[in-house]
Amino acid sequence: MTDIALIRAAASRMAGAVVKTPLLSAPLLDRIAGRRVLVKAECLQVTGSFKLRGAWAALSALPEDIRACGVIAYSSGNHAQGVALAAARHGVPAVIVMPADAPAIKIANTRAYGAEVILYDRATEDRDAIGAALVTERGLTLVKPYDDAQVIAGQGSVGLEIATEAAALGLREGAVVTCCGGGGLAAGIALALEADSPGLRLHTAEPTGFDDMARSLATGTIQRNERLKGSICDAILTPQPGALTFPILQRLAGPGQVVTDLEALQAVALAFRHLHIVLEPGGAVALAAALFRPDLPQTVISVATGGNTDAEMFRRALATLDA
Amino acid sequence: MTDIALIRAAASRMAGAVVKTPLLSAPLLDRIAGRRVLVKAECLQVTGSFKLRGAWAALSALPEDIRACGVIAYSSGNHAQGVALAAARHGVPAVIVMPADAPAIKIANTRAYGAEVILYDRATEDRDAIGAALVTERGLTLVKPYDDAQVIAGQGSVGLEIATEAAALGLREGAVVTCCGGGGLAAGIALALEADSPGLRLHTAEPTGFDDMARSLATGTIQRNERLKGSICDAILTPQPGALTFPILQRLAGPGQVVTDLEALQAVALAFRHLHIVLEPGGAVALAAALFRPDLPQTVISVATGGNTDAEMFRRALATLDA
Repeated sequence: MTDIALIRAAASRMAGAVVKTPLLSAPLLDRIAGRRVLVKAECLQVTGSFKLRGAWAALSALPEDIRACGVIAYSSGNHAQGVALAAARHGVPAVIVMPADAPAIKIANTRAYGAEVILYDRATEDRDAIGAALVTERGLTLVKPYDDAQVIAGQGSVGLEIATEAAALGLREGAVVTCCGGGGLAAGIALALEADSPGLRLHTAEPTGFDDMARSLATGTIQRNERLKGSICDAILTPQPGALTFPILQRLAGPGQVVTDLEALQAVALAFRHLHIVLEPGGAVALAAALFRPDLPQTVISVATGGNTDAEMFRRALATLDA
Repeated sequence: MTDIALIRAAASRMAGAVVKTPLLSAPLLDRIAGRRVLVKAECLQVTGSFKLRGAWAALSALPEDIRACGVIAYSSGNHAQGVALAAARHGVPAVIVMPADAPAIKIANTRAYGAEVILYDRATEDRDAIGAALVTERGLTLVKPYDDAQVIAGQGSVGLEIATEAAALGLREGAVVTCCGGGGLAAGIALALEADSPGLRLHTAEPTGFDDMARSLATGTIQRNERLKGSICDAILTPQPGALTFPILQRLAGPGQVVTDLEALQAVALAFRHLHIVLEPGGAVALAAALFRPDLPQTVISVATGGNTDAEMFRRALATLDA
């Protein structure tokens, strides 16, 4: 089970391998939001998303002989890149099962980090079944994207950094909002804040129509999404909250925030203009909530979870500035 | 005169007011460059460029009664925003003299920080004369963009951070390349490295046709640019090296690197794709040198000096990825 000790241990194992990302702000962005907005820029993490943290925590926790046989992951792209690079840096093979409609840049980068990529159809094939078969055939260890104690602990290192940075700014109260798929990052941050900055409350953010976590938190029972396609926020489209992540978030987080795809694109554009960072839509929903949702406190730290986007998608975001 | 003591004092005065920007890298960017490339991301600084540092150092060094009368600066945009925000945070008025052809976003932001903006024609009017008249009329203190001991000291704080970050990575040798206009940042970094990391040698980077510093370093005498318009690198088009900055750089830096506007645009695009930061062309010439110039060592730290760019210019950069 993930607790604060497991998070601190994971953070100490990743020293030197992950970037301590900055907490950014801009006076003109605060004016647009009507509140103080701070952005934890995990798009600047190596591989372009926070996923390297969880992957590093999981791989570095494996016994050396098990790790040497190689690892496998299924992912739309950011977990894929995190596992691929963590495996390469540990000198072990990685197989990544990716949906065929994942952004081309994420597939290309995963291959460039040295992983073997196997593509599947998100609508008709079951990635869990494909992964399980490869585990059996090749003796690989599965690195789950979120529902794993070590992965949650690794992502929790983001929460440790936020607590330290918030304390340095004298921030003891407010909201931390994070983009949320299966809830691994959200659960890890929530546990870290509970220990190190209990006045900061975590909220999840999701795109409209894929708000399984918000509905699960509201009802107290795990709710599924009806669809797994149809939003530009590909990074955070997951079937339902995790069995490990949901109880943590039910105890510590919410209510969940929901934003439209257009609001996510506007947040990408405003982060371009005022923060000078590149976000993917799924990495911008937390910033969109901080900018556009009234029901959050006067100070919001939003986690910008990833920046792996194509030029075409970024042009769509920039077009919202012309409107 | 700027020395390491003045730089350390300036750095201590700006604690809490400026961001300690991260040193970013990406395995796939190293592969393109054929060398190890680290990027000091000053585009993430508050106001979107390193200029806040020098402005903060200058304003915070003024006697309180002098500062209270207000400050004035002339700038194409980044120094303007730095002085405007530093003045606002010190609670004093600021007048900024800007060329009428500066990017609209820089003019708008300078006004949004609360400064009074006066526009002039870069080809026919003399900004120094306009500034001098305003100093006399209104009792303002001029904050020079680069040829000032306190401004050089403030920019030198970038060099202190680079030295600390390089030491943490075990880097004792290599090149530091910075985008260069009048040479304030370059001179400050060179002095900081001389004290704290003498194995790192500074090189300047400029756009083709506006390489006054490279030619001055090569000839040992101050050389002027023939033109002051005609490059997309508006942030770093200055008439000639400064009287204070050039002797420092002649002693400690060079040879100067020169890149084309197209190479600067390509560097903007590759920074988008691999580092997830937004650069303006003039803030990307040092990265362009690290990526495309063969005559630099195996490890290059390039300073990405600014990110204040329009959507239109960024679309031009993204188009180089399609080619």
